Amino acid sequence: MPSQTTSTNGAAANGSAKRGRPGYDQQSVLRIAVDVFNRHGYDATSMGILADNLGISKSAIYHHVPSKGDLLKLALDHALGGLESILEQPEATAGAADARLEFVLRRTVAVLVERLPFVTLLLRLRGNTEIERDALERRRTFDHKVAALISAARDEGSLRQDIDPRTVTRLLFGMINSIVEWYKPGGSLSPGKLADDVITMAFDGLHGQATPTA
Amino acid sequence: MPSQTTSTNGAAANGSAKRGRPGYDQQSVLRIAVDVFNRHGYDATSMGILADNLGISKSAIYHHVPSKGDLLKLALDHALGGLESILEQPEATAGAADARLEFVLRRTVAVLVERLPFVTLLLRLRGNTEIERDALERRRTFDHKVAALISAARDEGSLRQDIDPRTVTRLLFGMINSIVEWYKPGGSLSPGKLADDVITMAFDGLHGQATPTA
Repeated sequence: MPSQTTSTNGAAANGSAKRGRPGYDQQSVLRIAVDVFNRHGYDATSMGILADNLGISKSAIYHHVPSKGDLLKLALDHALGGLESILEQPEATAGAADARLEFVLRRTVAVLVERLPFVTLLLRLRGNTEIERDALERRRTFDHKVAALISAARDEGSLRQDIDPRTVTRLLFGMINSIVEWYKPGGSLSPGKLADDVITMAFDGLHGQATPTA
Repeated sequence: MPSQTTSTNGAAANGSAKRGRPGYDQQSVLRIAVDVFNRHGYDATSMGILADNLGISKSAIYHHVPSKGDLLKLALDHALGGLESILEQPEATAGAADARLEFVLRRTVAVLVERLPFVTLLLRLRGNTEIERDALERRRTFDHKVAALISAARDEGSLRQDIDPRTVTRLLFGMINSIVEWYKPGGSLSPGKLADDVITMAFDGLHGQATPTA
């Protein structure tokens, strides 16, 4: 799974797919911009601060994107696109709701890890601009579809009935979304093991296999 | 449990324990200040903005507290004091680690709900000032003590062994801390039921009692 790591350093361009200004392509500019947004907050980041961090002039940035808002839109689209595409896959649309839910949660963890800074930006949005509000609306739609899957699994009889599905959804997303705040890519916890751990905690809890029963 | 709600509205003082300027005591000023900090961010909140929200002059605020930093310190101390006192109670210090952990998690949820705006402020800190860094250090100490309890319960054999205790701690706190972002006091989900739900999810997971076994 962690094979396509060539573009995750956020450093200078690696020579391929360059466009416009030498040294950077749009993806590199975007990745660095997202890091700056996450550090300073989107509102507090000016094109001047971005230019300083990129080591290029403001007009060179405008060569890649028309405005700060366009960078935000591209970044949020990358985060949301990743999440939304999970729900379109066959494993999410056919079969028992319980298995579909497990697939969706597992893939959600994977997207969070693969697109960590982009999803971090999404999760910290305050909704001050139209672009932010549109993104929050798409995020809510994703959350509602997962909530519907939880309800379906519950109605199917495969999930416990004694917790309101809305509370389940909130607590599960609380657990999963926290990953962007503490997960360190490249550390001892691989993305695959992290996804396993989240699934285990979500479905079986801490007591789950404490005392083997067979 | 939700009986002492007289002081949770953050509105004008209720007539008792007043001190200084008529209409407000220090607790009322503090509560409103915390709401403003949570809305605008601590850094972006000036004493002028606070005065506007309180409907009093800046010099009237200085009658209650010497500075904005003192308000922050009082607020964080209220959040941290609530959390720290959990670990000093007999149910947290004696008995099986598993039962102690359940007690601590249940009480943590209760403190989050009882002191919601104060804990929200604590969880959103960025650590830009000495006061914030001190608070983050106290929060880390609390987290480490809970992590030690999780390790103890694991060593005792009462928790599953297949997840790193550090990952368990992160995911549990992710789930619990998310409460400040979505819980609406006074709604259909009581603080007691919320704590039950968190304990059930944490220890038994979603599959827990899906099919009753007796």
